[in-house]
Amino acid sequence: MSLKLIENRRSFGGEQVKYTHYSEVLQCEMTFSIYLPSNKEQKKIPLIWWLSGLTCTDDNFSQKSGFQRLAEKHQVAVMIPDTSPRGEHVANDDAWDLGQGAGFYVNATQDPWAKNFNMYSYIVEELAAIALTLVPHFSGKESIMGHSMGGHGALVTGMKNAERYKAISAFSPILNPMKVPWGIKAFSAYLGEDKALWKEWDASELIKEAGMPPILITQGTEDNFYPEQLDETQFLNNVQENNQTVLYEKKDGYDHSYFFISSFLEDHFSFHMKYLS
Amino acid sequence: MSLKLIENRRSFGGEQVKYTHYSEVLQCEMTFSIYLPSNKEQKKIPLIWWLSGLTCTDDNFSQKSGFQRLAEKHQVAVMIPDTSPRGEHVANDDAWDLGQGAGFYVNATQDPWAKNFNMYSYIVEELAAIALTLVPHFSGKESIMGHSMGGHGALVTGMKNAERYKAISAFSPILNPMKVPWGIKAFSAYLGEDKALWKEWDASELIKEAGMPPILITQGTEDNFYPEQLDETQFLNNVQENNQTVLYEKKDGYDHSYFFISSFLEDHFSFHMKYLS
Repeated sequence: MSLKLIENRRSFGGEQVKYTHYSEVLQCEMTFSIYLPSNKEQKKIPLIWWLSGLTCTDDNFSQKSGFQRLAEKHQVAVMIPDTSPRGEHVANDDAWDLGQGAGFYVNATQDPWAKNFNMYSYIVEELAAIALTLVPHFSGKESIMGHSMGGHGALVTGMKNAERYKAISAFSPILNPMKVPWGIKAFSAYLGEDKALWKEWDASELIKEAGMPPILITQGTEDNFYPEQLDETQFLNNVQENNQTVLYEKKDGYDHSYFFISSFLEDHFSFHMKYLS
Repeated sequence: MSLKLIENRRSFGGEQVKYTHYSEVLQCEMTFSIYLPSNKEQKKIPLIWWLSGLTCTDDNFSQKSGFQRLAEKHQVAVMIPDTSPRGEHVANDDAWDLGQGAGFYVNATQDPWAKNFNMYSYIVEELAAIALTLVPHFSGKESIMGHSMGGHGALVTGMKNAERYKAISAFSPILNPMKVPWGIKAFSAYLGEDKALWKEWDASELIKEAGMPPILITQGTEDNFYPEQLDETQFLNNVQENNQTVLYEKKDGYDHSYFFISSFLEDHFSFHMKYLS
């Protein structure tokens, strides 16, 4: 494992750092950002994962959310992966919602995607091992949040590893990818036609299992992808039928952008810290 | 005056709005952004002006500073102009620090710039008249802040209208443009060779006059343009010789970016609100 430091900028007393590295899991060069709080008291600090949406890189959340103020206030590290494998030799598609920039946080089984598109294992295994080496005084406690495609990613990753991630939250997530255009397109390409396999990557299916971490979801009412891509009906039905505890809240007048995310990120950090402290 | 609404996004309870309009002063189409706090109590609200730096548009501050949280907290409107005239028919230069994107907040006297490059009058007169129509319950109180070239702009504009702007603040401003490469290049082009005219646009000269508004300046020690472009020596000498009150503070380890600005913007808003309330 060889990390190359690209940027290190002081922010709110802590450090906003960017690295590149060669990913064995994704078979390509990858970039990620991590925020390390000042930790002046040398206490144990937890780690929040942020998964971004379609077309994003690690920069969107780093530059537009204002999260560093909250991470420093709560003394928590934040890891921000890229959203997909990238590069000339990585499979791609002309569409913005498939291929590079649209990894969907699954492990692909179909050609030409299977070689590189393994974002789930990259995040859960390879990047997690790297995070261990980068967070000083790591408390061992992790949680996960994300936006849109990354909200789907946070829910699926968190629920598939319910013992490990202490809390899950999402802004305007794709809650039922098997049933909406973005998800159907991506799952058909990456996973093929076996719907039993699709269910393993659908939050509305995973929420049927007992023992899930606490979940907070925030959705803007003026989101131009709602409800078509972000419909919550099936998910909330399954929450109720299976006696799960999920806080699903709508915010009047907010859209799909970082203006929405930044407005409510403080609530999400407070929610996570209840389970990370 | 005809405004075209381009975007209206809810942010922290208020509205982040973007308009285009034809500027008579600049003789071209211009874009600007304005934040209007929720003003739930229908109180009188003041207005802060933000002037951006080289290469920026109104988007940089809108998307990267997190200012909306502070504007909503303090119930203050914020006006964010573009940094220069723009368009096919507007004079330009291949360099990033001259021409479009580099208006320097002066009124140009030299060809080919004099026709369009009148950012000072645009902000003080034309855009101010527009602001009056956009801010409901305006208290009539204004202040001004900015970054780098826009820090120079905020200081010069604020000091040339000391009765009008109740406070001035700047992040990493060009404090002595007559003596540093960016300023010499811009002033030579826009103002010609008459150094007496240059003095009218140099904060280190203007600070010699009595009756200036309260001023706060914040500078990062790891700023890659400091001290070459941002040297404070002459300015602070003149502050002292003329018994002015200026708070000039350095922040260890911070660079020239919005990671720096966002880290200390809360201090600047608190400073302004002392004089705007």
